[in-house]
Parts: sequence; structure tokens; C-alpha cells
Amino acid sequence: MCKQLMNSSENEDSLPARRCASAISMSTGDDDVAIKILYCGICHSDLHSIKNEWHNAMYPVVPGHEIAGVVTEVGKNVTKFKAGDRVGVGCIVNSCQSCDSCNEGFENHCRGMIFTYNSVDLDGTVTYGGYSSNVVVHERFVVRFPDAMPLDQGAPLLCAGITVYSPMKHHGLNVPGKHVGVVGLGGLGHVAVKFAKAFGMKVTVISSSPAKKQEALERHGADAFIVSRNDDEMKAAAGTMDGIINTVSANIPMAPYMSMLKPYGKMIMVGLPDKPLEIPPFDLMTGSKTLAGSCIGGMRDTQEMIDVAAKHGVTADIEVVGADYVNTAMERLAKADVRYRFVIDIGNTLKSSD
Amino acid sequence: MCKQLMNSSENEDSLPARRCASAISMSTGDDDVAIKILYCGICHSDLHSIKNEWHNAMYPVVPGHEIAGVVTEVGKNVTKFKAGDRVGVGCIVNSCQSCDSCNEGFENHCRGMIFTYNSVDLDGTVTYGGYSSNVVVHERFVVRFPDAMPLDQGAPLLCAGITVYSPMKHHGLNVPGKHVGVVGLGGLGHVAVKFAKAFGMKVTVISSSPAKKQEALERHGADAFIVSRNDDEMKAAAGTMDGIINTVSANIPMAPYMSMLKPYGKMIMVGLPDKPLEIPPFDLMTGSKTLAGSCIGGMRDTQEMIDVAAKHGVTADIEVVGADYVNTAMERLAKADVRYRFVIDIGNTLKSSD
Repeated sequence: MCKQLMNSSENEDSLPARRCASAISMSTGDDDVAIKILYCGICHSDLHSIKNEWHNAMYPVVPGHEIAGVVTEVGKNVTKFKAGDRVGVGCIVNSCQSCDSCNEGFENHCRGMIFTYNSVDLDGTVTYGGYSSNVVVHERFVVRFPDAMPLDQGAPLLCAGITVYSPMKHHGLNVPGKHVGVVGLGGLGHVAVKFAKAFGMKVTVISSSPAKKQEALERHGADAFIVSRNDDEMKAAAGTMDGIINTVSANIPMAPYMSMLKPYGKMIMVGLPDKPLEIPPFDLMTGSKTLAGSCIGGMRDTQEMIDVAAKHGVTADIEVVGADYVNTAMERLAKADVRYRFVIDIGNTLKSSD
Repeated sequence: MCKQLMNSSENEDSLPARRCASAISMSTGDDDVAIKILYCGICHSDLHSIKNEWHNAMYPVVPGHEIAGVVTEVGKNVTKFKAGDRVGVGCIVNSCQSCDSCNEGFENHCRGMIFTYNSVDLDGTVTYGGYSSNVVVHERFVVRFPDAMPLDQGAPLLCAGITVYSPMKHHGLNVPGKHVGVVGLGGLGHVAVKFAKAFGMKVTVISSSPAKKQEALERHGADAFIVSRNDDEMKAAAGTMDGIINTVSANIPMAPYMSMLKPYGKMIMVGLPDKPLEIPPFDLMTGSKTLAGSCIGGMRDTQEMIDVAAKHGVTADIEVVGADYVNTAMERLAKADVRYRFVIDIGNTLKSSD
């Protein structure tokens, strides 16, 4: 269960297990972990949500699902965490915890899954996200940060990291020597490149921006770079990739990318274009290719992702900003003017409302 | 290598390994198997090809890639077959035999793959199919018919059977207890139902034709039947299927079918609509679903398919016709007036041209 408050004292009469607050009085439910938030990443979803671009905003919206901090208190049934632990909370804060998906570790596919913000929790209250000082979450939805994982650079992995890690694992795109293409070098894409290199794969970045070539190759260690508007470069890569992680949310034609896949190759969509994908059936059948979607990941995979990232030194490239810079950061994010994720320094800059 | 002649004596001066004929003199290449054709299935591809609907016809087109017969002679290097063996030839008669796909047993994905008819073979000659009395094929592309597999009812499996078996195996839709939907109850669909039942799966047939309910349930043993135009029936099945084998070549909307998949469910396209598939990205990402194409199968899988079919009594439901009925059969096939495959009784009805 989860509830995050920035500047409100509502719900003070909630059941104990559901109560949480910033500076207001707080008690922690038996299965809950109370967390002092130190950092929260700014995800493009936050921008979509506050602008109601997905037409589902329940104002006031408190965004933030890339939360990192320190445990302050745990409920009496909590076994995985104790006060002082370095932890994170990602996109999910609740689920039915009893369906097939939950039992298989895929809470992200539970029909009762509750998003960290702008979601109606099981008790009917709206969830608020990590642009906040505190959060209380059922221990199932809390992720342990290994010592080697910085809280600030690790926070964005709780969305961007699991979004690319989960399908790479599920579709076998985590095998040394295989060749993966990463379309788009942004918040998701640069993490996908880092994970792919950590897996020992060959990585080709495909981007519409030639200016990103140097950072793809030199900063992130990609093996090759293709400018998507360059037909010759695209054609030269035909039939060479075992899979593609497509992080682009723009409505780009699929056929040129499908052609770069080997037989049985897989194109994984983790971006969310607003128009239907148009897939020529022949392009899918020739080579028995796969087009798949993927939506974040379950809690078991999220913990595994953070552990693997810590082991291999995979972190997000971030720009840390103060709480009073959030509106400016949003404007810059809308222009893709960030390498690659803003992270709010909650601990040092968020003023208490009380 | 392969060459099938119906009424021509062309190519008599070909290299020995490439020579074959019906009544003309014939010698068999070192790696080749000479086959007296007894039955040949009529596939919808044959109709597309002779009408040049795929705009690639090289007339004269001799169709037929569901060939069953008896070995008459083998080349000196042939180890897998001997005269008298009951064998079949499917959609493929040659490939480079050295690329990664060939080495992995997926000759169907070899860039040098040669179709059984209307394809240009490695020596530049056009291949002719099984509406013929004899065929000579490299042993790699010959399938052994188990004793329990009738030549006539087994012939269509060499296209229809492998087309559905291969993706069911590849995508894990061959596991007891899993639930598979089969869209369309025709030549491919009825075989998919039979294989799925042989695998111990729950099978739901989805068809636009309510008239097929009885045959789906009673004749083929499907567990459930949904009329695709009935929104209530479609919605009632939401989130229940591990996979769907879509055999329909019409341009049907994908979204209602995608919604029937469980999380991580897979929609496999084995039909070939002529317009692009329109896939709402959200439908693909919610539940991390997969849309995949599939194109026949490799030779190892084709042999395995025939062996599994023989073991479980899976055969095609056929109407055996004489060679002089082929034109009528084609007209009826165009109207879907067949349950479910025509098979030409080549052995008893095809008159020699010499």
C-alpha cells in the first residue's frame, strides 16, 4: 500500500496500514516500509501525466516513480528491510498479490496493479508519487539498493532500467555475443545500451540524430551507430540483429527496422507511439519475426535488475536538480534537453510544508 | 535439387544431378532421391500462384508442394532413403545448406531457399511442383512418412501441418494445459486444432462462421467455439489464452484478438493478409504481448511434425480428386467449398504425356 503526500494532511484518519505523511504524524502498517525519500527521478511519464496527455489525470497529480531513499520504520511483519536500509520504489506500489501474475512474480501484469501515482488504490484513494519527502509502501514493492548502487544514479533504473531489462531477459536478449539494436538514445535507450554491454552483447544504436554518434560509441560503449534517416546505413544492417529495443514513442515506420532482424529476430516496443503500428504481414512472416510490447517488470525482476546493474556498474546518466528547478526541468525534458534523466535532490532541497 | 516435369522433355541435357523427368529418361544425382508421386495436396498458395495474385508467376507454373509418394531410386551418397520408402516433399526443395539458418535446421529462413515450384533454382532453372508424376529432390528435403501416416491424408501436412506446428513448437504453444485459440477453421486451422489437442491443450476455435461450431467441437474435438462477430463472446474470452494461431488471410482487426491473450500471450500470424496489420501499441504493451509471423518450417521440424502427427493420429481431412478435376477443385477452393483440403490422386489419374 502506498500514499505519498507533499503538502496535504488529508487521510489522517486512514487505516493504520494506509497512513503515511511527510511531516504529519505517521504510523506504518504491519507489512509496510516507511521511507524517507532522498532522490526521485523525473520520467517522461511524469510530464505526460501532469499535462493530462493520457487523459487520465486525477488532479492534484504528484508524479514520481523513480524513488530512492532510506528506510525510517518498518511494520511488525516486515522481514526484508530494517531502518537505515537504502531502498527504492518504482512504478508499482500495490497489486492483488494473489492472482497468477502476482504469484509468478509479474505484479506488473496483475489486473489489480496500482501505479505509484495517479492510480486509485484498493481503498479508493488516489496514489501520489515521489516528488515528496516520505512514502510508505508494502515491503513487496520495495527494492533493496546494493551498497555499490548510488541512490541518485540508481533511482531512474526503477523505471527506465526495468523497462528495458525485463524484455531483454524475457526475450533472450541478454546473451553474450548476440547483436541487439537500440532505437533512440534517451532515458531508456542509454540504459539499454549499458545493460546490453554488461551482458556481453554487440550493440548498435539507431538514432535520427547524427549528433549522438560520439556519445553512443565513446560514452556508452556501443559497437556501431546508424542514422535512421540514412537508407544506406539501414540497409547495410539488414538481417544482422537478434533483437531490437525500440524506445521511441514517435510514430516511425516499422518496416525498415523489422528488416534489420535476423530470422526469429524480435522487435521489442518499450516506447508508446500514439498511433497504431502498421506492420506489413510479409515482413513479419519472412524470417518468422516477432513484434512484442513490454510494460515495466515485476518486483522479482526489478530487484534482480538493480542487483545486476550494481554488479556491472550500470547506472543512469543524470543531472541532479533541486526541487525548485522541477518546472524548468519539465520544460527542458519536453525538448529532450537532458543527458539523460533529471533527478530531484529531494533530501536536500524539498522544503517541508508544515 | 529439384525439377518436376509434367509434359515436357526440356532439360534433358542438364547435369545428371539435376535431371529428372516423368516418362523421359532420368538419372538421379548423387545426393538425390527420385520419387514417384502418388498424391499431391492442393494448397491455397497454388491458386494464388496460377492466378499470379502475388505478381511473381513464371509461367508455365506447375503448382503443388504437398507431395507424397514412393522412392524409386536414390543417388550413391544417399543414406536416409532407399527404393520403396514412403516419403514426402513439402514447400522447400533446396537451400544453400551452409548458412547459419541451414546449419540450425531452419532452411526455411535461408536466403538461398528454393520453393518447390515457381522458384529459380541455384542453376537458374525454374522449379515445377507436384501436380506431376515424378520428382527428384536432394535427400535433405525429403521427409520420411511413418507407416501409420497415410500418403493421401498426410500430404497436406507438408504445408498446412508444418505451417502451424513450427510456430506452436517455437513459441511454446505445445504444452499440456495451455489454452490456444485458433482463428479460422480451414486447411490450416483444422490441423492446428488437431495438433493442439494432441499436445493436450485447451483449444478454442474463433470463426466468423457460426455454421462451423459443430464441426469444430464434435469433429475436431475443440473445447470451445467463439463467433468472431459476437462481441459478447469475444469479450468473455478476454485474457484467457496463452496463444492464438491466426490462420486468416483476410484483413481483420487485430485488437479484439490481442485482448483475448493472457499476459505474455502470443498471437501468431500464419495467414497472409494483403494490407498492413494495425496494432495499437497500448494493446501490445499491456500484458507484454507478442505478435509474431511464421513461415512454414525447417526440414528437421518437418520430419518431427510428421512423426508426431503419425504418433497422435493427426491427419488432414481431405477430399481426394482425380487429375481431371483440378480446375473444378480450384474453383471450389476459391469459394472455400472444401473440408478442408483437396488432394489429387496422381498415381491413379494423371496420364503420362509421352
